[in-house]
Amino acid sequence: MVSSVHSKPIAVDDQPRHAAMRFRRLWFATSLVAASASAVATPLPSWNDGAARRAIIAFVDAATKEGSPGYVQEAERIAVFDNDGTLWAEQPMYFQLAFAIDRIRAMAPQHPEWQTKEPFASILRGDVSAALQGGERAILDIVMASHAGMTTTQFEQTVADWLATARHPKTGRLYTEMVYQPMLEVLTYLRANGFKTFIVSGGGVDFLRVFAEKVYGIPPEQVVGSSIETKFEMRDDGPALVRLPKLDFIDDKAGKPVAIHLHIGRRPVMAFGNSDGDLQMLQWTTSGSGPRFGLLVHHTDAEREWAYDRQSHVGKLDLALDEAPRRSWTVVDMKADWARIYP
Amino acid sequence: MVSSVHSKPIAVDDQPRHAAMRFRRLWFATSLVAASASAVATPLPSWNDGAARRAIIAFVDAATKEGSPGYVQEAERIAVFDNDGTLWAEQPMYFQLAFAIDRIRAMAPQHPEWQTKEPFASILRGDVSAALQGGERAILDIVMASHAGMTTTQFEQTVADWLATARHPKTGRLYTEMVYQPMLEVLTYLRANGFKTFIVSGGGVDFLRVFAEKVYGIPPEQVVGSSIETKFEMRDDGPALVRLPKLDFIDDKAGKPVAIHLHIGRRPVMAFGNSDGDLQMLQWTTSGSGPRFGLLVHHTDAEREWAYDRQSHVGKLDLALDEAPRRSWTVVDMKADWARIYP
Repeated sequence: MVSSVHSKPIAVDDQPRHAAMRFRRLWFATSLVAASASAVATPLPSWNDGAARRAIIAFVDAATKEGSPGYVQEAERIAVFDNDGTLWAEQPMYFQLAFAIDRIRAMAPQHPEWQTKEPFASILRGDVSAALQGGERAILDIVMASHAGMTTTQFEQTVADWLATARHPKTGRLYTEMVYQPMLEVLTYLRANGFKTFIVSGGGVDFLRVFAEKVYGIPPEQVVGSSIETKFEMRDDGPALVRLPKLDFIDDKAGKPVAIHLHIGRRPVMAFGNSDGDLQMLQWTTSGSGPRFGLLVHHTDAEREWAYDRQSHVGKLDLALDEAPRRSWTVVDMKADWARIYP
Repeated sequence: MVSSVHSKPIAVDDQPRHAAMRFRRLWFATSLVAASASAVATPLPSWNDGAARRAIIAFVDAATKEGSPGYVQEAERIAVFDNDGTLWAEQPMYFQLAFAIDRIRAMAPQHPEWQTKEPFASILRGDVSAALQGGERAILDIVMASHAGMTTTQFEQTVADWLATARHPKTGRLYTEMVYQPMLEVLTYLRANGFKTFIVSGGGVDFLRVFAEKVYGIPPEQVVGSSIETKFEMRDDGPALVRLPKLDFIDDKAGKPVAIHLHIGRRPVMAFGNSDGDLQMLQWTTSGSGPRFGLLVHHTDAEREWAYDRQSHVGKLDLALDEAPRRSWTVVDMKADWARIYP
């Protein structure tokens, strides 16, 4: 289901550390080029000229025009973005779960007990669906086994190595190549207009930060996400932060406004999401006084991406879709609104 | 001990809301003037020319000079500051505790049961020392009674009203006028050199954010602190975040590197503190690879401020003072190094 790449050497250079560095440099260069290009040209070139594109541009035009009723002081120009399904794809499973499953496979030789213990046994037999039938408990076991028990530095390196090599089972692309070009343009466009862009994701904050700066131009301090507990330890070779197998915070649903308040400390004026996990973030953002903007990405393109909403197990969009017209949120029809999907 | 001002009407305008707005405007104007003045003149004018001032300037000069061995890429220029005792005074008690005690007094009419219940009864009798003899439990009771049970918006307004009017028992100054001019200059100087400045304080994050932007030029999203839990609620008049009487995180000692990792997501290159509560933050910051800078403010000026260190109940500086020479941390001798204390 998900390609396991850890057993294969990487083309020219088999040191994962170097692969990760090349990956970082490459992405950094790419995003710089993209940023400078979009800043001077027509905004949002990968968006078809429809209601969604016009709504974004109209809001930003007003927000940056002093004296306009839609004007927003620069310090208040905070825009928050969900990640999975909003900035990059999330099918057939959250990419971070694909990472976790690949890690279980890579770590299996050190854990002979996993051969007979669920959910690990099913993963090692290649039956991810069976593993996930254990529900939240199974997912938690998979996440903790793959995300805890190492220092933060070691974990970041593991994620960087995986992102540099693992490929999506359907598209064959690197996961970081499955970001949405139209949304990259929104990020660049907003920043060029004085907005600070934040990720507010149900995904793990330490996972996101490994690529957010290179791929989205969003620095670590502007990434908010779910977390496990970490512990400060003084070791022989200096202090370390160790990742513990204990949930700290789930940044989803009603947790999103809570995390926004805790990390950002002021209410955003723009919020972008794609699922019911973003409902409260959009409610919180758009019910503040003054100009407000909410947007939902509706996955309607079964051909170029995926089509799913009310019945989907991943990225379910139901309540928020009903609420959108009542609250004047912009709904992106991916098939009609986006001229391109991936970069 | 602490002046209670809530029962007195404010001079011209007795609406606390307006007083808070005036306070904000005033501070905003003041800090803009201060910022533009220091950016063009000699750096750190309120510092005497000694080892501490020279160390700061030498580090920043090298950090901003491409090709220098001390060069630091702009994205990595993260500087973290403790607040109590580092950016503003903390004697004879943390200012936030003075706020909490004033709130207990102001709220007493709605809580007749406090007349006979500790630690409230002692506070209402005017005996704060007796109240604090209940130790951590008593402080927690005082904090929860004064900091929880309202929305985040209501709490922020209460803090703003208090800061606009409450005065320090010894100096008679507003608490926000007891910030250290030399440290304001460090903040401005670092930002003028491409550093992002963060507060990492044991104080409450929501308390700090009310004044950090106006007083220090540090926006809410760059303030990290202790927190209580908040809950998202959908109310008749829209969504609200409600403050619950439950500790979420104590951002002190080993909690500081943990919070830095969670909120900022990269290791700072400069850290400024004044007590053992900052020890791990300085260890974590200065043990990273490449150029690193740690600084401790040593309170040595009994005349213009306070003199205290190893034996103090507030801002105890003992272990960190011993560790400073071994780790090449700069120690500020407040009496000798600072030409001025307050603005």
